[in-house]
Amino acid sequence: MEHPMRDARRRVVIEHIDPEIDAGRFPIKRVPGERVVVEVDAFAEGHDELTCVLLHRGGQESDWHEVPMRPLVNDRWRGEFRVGAPGRHLYTVEAWVDHFHTWVRDLVRRLEAGQDVSVDLQIGAELVMAAAGRARAEDAAELRDAATAMTGRAGERMAMSPRLGELMGRHPDRCHATRYARELEVTVDRERARFSAWYELFPRSASPAKGRHGTFKDVEARLPYVAGMGFDVLYLTPIHPIGRTFRKGPNNAVQCEPGDPGSPWAIGGPEGGHKSVNPELGTLDQFRQLVRAARRQGLDVAMDIAFQASPDHPYVREHPEWFRHRPDGTIQYAENPPKKYQDIYPFDFECDDWQSLWRELHSVFEFWIDQGVRIFRVDNPHTKPFAFWEWVIGEVRERHPDVIFLSEAFTRPRVMERLAKVGFDQSYTYFAWRNEASELREYLTELTRTQVREYLRPNFWPNTQDILTETLQTGGPPASALRFVLASTLAASYGIFGPTFELVEVTPLRAGREEYLDSEKYQVRHWDLDRPGSLRPLITKVNRIRREHPALQQDRTLRFLRTDNERLLAYAKTSDDGADVVVVIVNLDARWKQSGWVEVPVRARAGNPPYQVEDLLSGQRFMWRTDTWNFVELDPEIAPAHIVRVPRALVPEESP
Amino acid sequence: MEHPMRDARRRVVIEHIDPEIDAGRFPIKRVPGERVVVEVDAFAEGHDELTCVLLHRGGQESDWHEVPMRPLVNDRWRGEFRVGAPGRHLYTVEAWVDHFHTWVRDLVRRLEAGQDVSVDLQIGAELVMAAAGRARAEDAAELRDAATAMTGRAGERMAMSPRLGELMGRHPDRCHATRYARELEVTVDRERARFSAWYELFPRSASPAKGRHGTFKDVEARLPYVAGMGFDVLYLTPIHPIGRTFRKGPNNAVQCEPGDPGSPWAIGGPEGGHKSVNPELGTLDQFRQLVRAARRQGLDVAMDIAFQASPDHPYVREHPEWFRHRPDGTIQYAENPPKKYQDIYPFDFECDDWQSLWRELHSVFEFWIDQGVRIFRVDNPHTKPFAFWEWVIGEVRERHPDVIFLSEAFTRPRVMERLAKVGFDQSYTYFAWRNEASELREYLTELTRTQVREYLRPNFWPNTQDILTETLQTGGPPASALRFVLASTLAASYGIFGPTFELVEVTPLRAGREEYLDSEKYQVRHWDLDRPGSLRPLITKVNRIRREHPALQQDRTLRFLRTDNERLLAYAKTSDDGADVVVVIVNLDARWKQSGWVEVPVRARAGNPPYQVEDLLSGQRFMWRTDTWNFVELDPEIAPAHIVRVPRALVPEESP
Repeated sequence: MEHPMRDARRRVVIEHIDPEIDAGRFPIKRVPGERVVVEVDAFAEGHDELTCVLLHRGGQESDWHEVPMRPLVNDRWRGEFRVGAPGRHLYTVEAWVDHFHTWVRDLVRRLEAGQDVSVDLQIGAELVMAAAGRARAEDAAELRDAATAMTGRAGERMAMSPRLGELMGRHPDRCHATRYARELEVTVDRERARFSAWYELFPRSASPAKGRHGTFKDVEARLPYVAGMGFDVLYLTPIHPIGRTFRKGPNNAVQCEPGDPGSPWAIGGPEGGHKSVNPELGTLDQFRQLVRAARRQGLDVAMDIAFQASPDHPYVREHPEWFRHRPDGTIQYAENPPKKYQDIYPFDFECDDWQSLWRELHSVFEFWIDQGVRIFRVDNPHTKPFAFWEWVIGEVRERHPDVIFLSEAFTRPRVMERLAKVGFDQSYTYFAWRNEASELREYLTELTRTQVREYLRPNFWPNTQDILTETLQTGGPPASALRFVLASTLAASYGIFGPTFELVEVTPLRAGREEYLDSEKYQVRHWDLDRPGSLRPLITKVNRIRREHPALQQDRTLRFLRTDNERLLAYAKTSDDGADVVVVIVNLDARWKQSGWVEVPVRARAGNPPYQVEDLLSGQRFMWRTDTWNFVELDPEIAPAHIVRVPRALVPEESP
Repeated sequence: MEHPMRDARRRVVIEHIDPEIDAGRFPIKRVPGERVVVEVDAFAEGHDELTCVLLHRGGQESDWHEVPMRPLVNDRWRGEFRVGAPGRHLYTVEAWVDHFHTWVRDLVRRLEAGQDVSVDLQIGAELVMAAAGRARAEDAAELRDAATAMTGRAGERMAMSPRLGELMGRHPDRCHATRYARELEVTVDRERARFSAWYELFPRSASPAKGRHGTFKDVEARLPYVAGMGFDVLYLTPIHPIGRTFRKGPNNAVQCEPGDPGSPWAIGGPEGGHKSVNPELGTLDQFRQLVRAARRQGLDVAMDIAFQASPDHPYVREHPEWFRHRPDGTIQYAENPPKKYQDIYPFDFECDDWQSLWRELHSVFEFWIDQGVRIFRVDNPHTKPFAFWEWVIGEVRERHPDVIFLSEAFTRPRVMERLAKVGFDQSYTYFAWRNEASELREYLTELTRTQVREYLRPNFWPNTQDILTETLQTGGPPASALRFVLASTLAASYGIFGPTFELVEVTPLRAGREEYLDSEKYQVRHWDLDRPGSLRPLITKVNRIRREHPALQQDRTLRFLRTDNERLLAYAKTSDDGADVVVVIVNLDARWKQSGWVEVPVRARAGNPPYQVEDLLSGQRFMWRTDTWNFVELDPEIAPAHIVRVPRALVPEESP
């Protein structure tokens, strides 16, 4: 075993930097302009003064920017910077013993004790002369003059002058500085990775004419409806040719009838595979036109990427080596024993030729990026190796830093977290199954107050094409409304599966199952978007509030407020600059009116005058009381929540 | 930036191993036979079964021992091993996807669903044949036979047989196993590093004749007294020649009179330096004899190592380059401005010739090791570079794994922790200044329930030659007694500075100061060990209890118990095997009798019969009630505490 003689003059220890994910193995995530607040323990033996700086640079820059860190308590230091354009950003910390400032500190103490400091001033002058040697031009001359003056009559005053302190701070002796052991990385995504409202639909159900298969053109005609509600991501279920073999019929029937469209996740047929479009939807040209039209209306088209093949996929014929073969010569279909999914062949990531498989799958992303797509919703990423995702997302983002990946994994916590660490920009969550106030507080605290917040951006969905929760099935429109308000105000990113959601289409296949009756996964549906009872007005209003209030565009400042009624969930979000504070109070009871007291802490003012707040949802105004509890009452038949803008006086519980 | 194509077949992720200090930068600490419980997150994508093993080996062994880990919840695994002889021990974790056990699990599900499994049995037989290829001799033959049988009539039964599971577990396919990124280290110290009772004395005050300077011979005569009280470490203040220049007089007087002995921490005079003994104490031979005599009585002699020099130290003349020079040509003395310590020159660890300084200081340790010393109490290590300690302790322990270093640092928490991380085996603590129940609970929780417990072994001292707390000054014998019981039962290692402590010599230099009047630091004292009121009987009894009760020989199982009176502090310790449980209830009030209820949770038994407990201190027996609260009353004039052995039924709050 070696015991290296590490240079004793490099005295500062730097440890416990935060944020740092798994000893620097993974990056943290930000969007342009967002802050990174860095804390670190930095200390040396003895009692000398230290200087500690935060270094950071864009991935393309060769020089570090340097930001001072300030001491907190117990040798902890804090500094912050803001990241720039999408791509990579790096940071680390450097610190050194500051002999000059230690010397000034001690000089003051000696002078206060009335000691003779003539020799000390000579020592200080030597430090200043050394700094002159490191400085150039005017600074060097000024430092030399200061050194001379320090051994003269006004030496003490010169030694303690702010100007000299500033000059010495500009030319420190860093030859024995300690640099933190690692350079840490920030993945900078575009703004939409942090703040987005998603609308999912089946293109084939977008036809205005009942009974006709929808097309890209129909989806294009639907854009004003989606954009008008205030969404900014339009997520299309898979658009590729659909397999014939073992095609499923309506309601997941094992046998299908001629004309049944099959599940779009059974990807690939004679018309092509992952780089082709289902001819019933239109042409690739029409798809590109849809993407462009959506962009003009402020909508990103998100593409569904499901890496699996129907038995009719061209890959099965062209690359049998990418699939697992059974002893009877057949290809291994997907299974969750005893369930069999014979219409789907998973890729065999353990095959010998895994590298060619990876490259082909990478080319699928690049193909759709070439068609204008910049957001991918990835189906079941937790059934493919983490190493693959880390590689493919890294490759894609290297060339296209504006691409966003959403991880559709509903599985164990460590697996979902790992997918976020290896590169997914957003993640589906357990939100759909968190109903009680205590559950929501606990889950959101984990997502927004622990290290998870540095790499996992939650995307809250009250429903999806696979998830129709019991709450939605049984609670009627008030339940859908309250789940919508929770999703869209608890999380900066959320989504709904429509038009099912806004039309409150909540009939399950069977009681106790989370699947829809006559699910669009297996048949073409037709929706009357104008039918009464649509949640469209509520959705439109909330999306407008989200856009107008920076407080709702991030998750980091979420703080729960106390209530005296567990059916009322109250929380506050504050914008990064503290100027915008939104308080949301949700009635978690879809059936009964609930009332109670909510504590809204605001900065105390002389005489504690009442202040006016506005419910952004209803337009109502209330008088609230400074620094105390306020009474609220919510009737599910009228509104699921108050969304209240509070004058900027609200005191957050702690700094971010 | 590179995006490596990491082999997709190495599917398992291993992360968040515990214990691990600063990403493996520092070792954890144990003594021979002590357990290391390791937990780790291990998981792969998908739903395959994993096997996870803990690997460990002694520093001299080339092959790993392998221990199975068992799954807890959420992909967390746990395993444990025990370390061997003093030195280094290493551990890490390996895991792989277990295709055979996944296959068996799925086979069971298929059979339960009544499916045809003939092709599945062929797949399983292939897995078994592959294992036969990895096995040798009988195992290989048995596996081949099993593979054949699996495709026959009794194939299902063979597939699920425990014997086949065992064989397959013995020959797993580990070619794509994941090994944790780092090998982690355990420093194994000898038992005394974990469990020790220290007694500090000034050799020069050990003379039985008043007015005569004590000698090594006098200390030898004192050994039965110290060993008789049950101590196992005898710590001697520095024994080197003492400087003349600026020698301090009694009570730290700036001027000394002829005949004043000076502070033994002003090391070095014409007679020699760190490798010499003060001739007034005797000869090096006599010191060696003392060390041998102590060992025969079960006592380790601990040496005080203070790396600083008096102006008369030979180093000053022979190695002026190891000191800092002032512009006026003098050598920089120690300071804490405005205080000056002109009798002491610190070494300049920032000097150009730091490497020769390090080597010389290393040789000081080796010199005393050659004289038989195996424990060093290091004075003010927090004023020397961490890098030096890491190197020198590493060098010493490489050749002498039985050497123990105690860090005498009373400074900021991060600095004290770092000294423990870089190699000190025991550490002084803030215990002397923690008096209230809440303070003690909080501090001990930090020391015994956080990661700190893996590398910092606290050594609790109610007093030292520098520390006479206000509690001791004002509380009389009951205060000393209660502080003694706290130190010796809260911490497996503790020490007292005697005979001052047991004689309750608590007069301060001045009120509000923590220094002793007529401190032995500056003058020779004489003590009448037999004077009335000595705490010697209490100390003797408690040290015997500590030796008889493994529960008190470690800190990891410390748990605080609830009381209804904040002046009563109650806690339990349990031995590693759970067989020995000791409950201590201390009256923190040195003046008034205190009574109240203490919750002692014990395993419920039918009818909740009362059970008998014995106070090991008083010999009294009480009847306590199962699974409920018990009444206690403690009078400081009679006893500071109950130390109660509880029948083994006590339920610890959680596993270690």
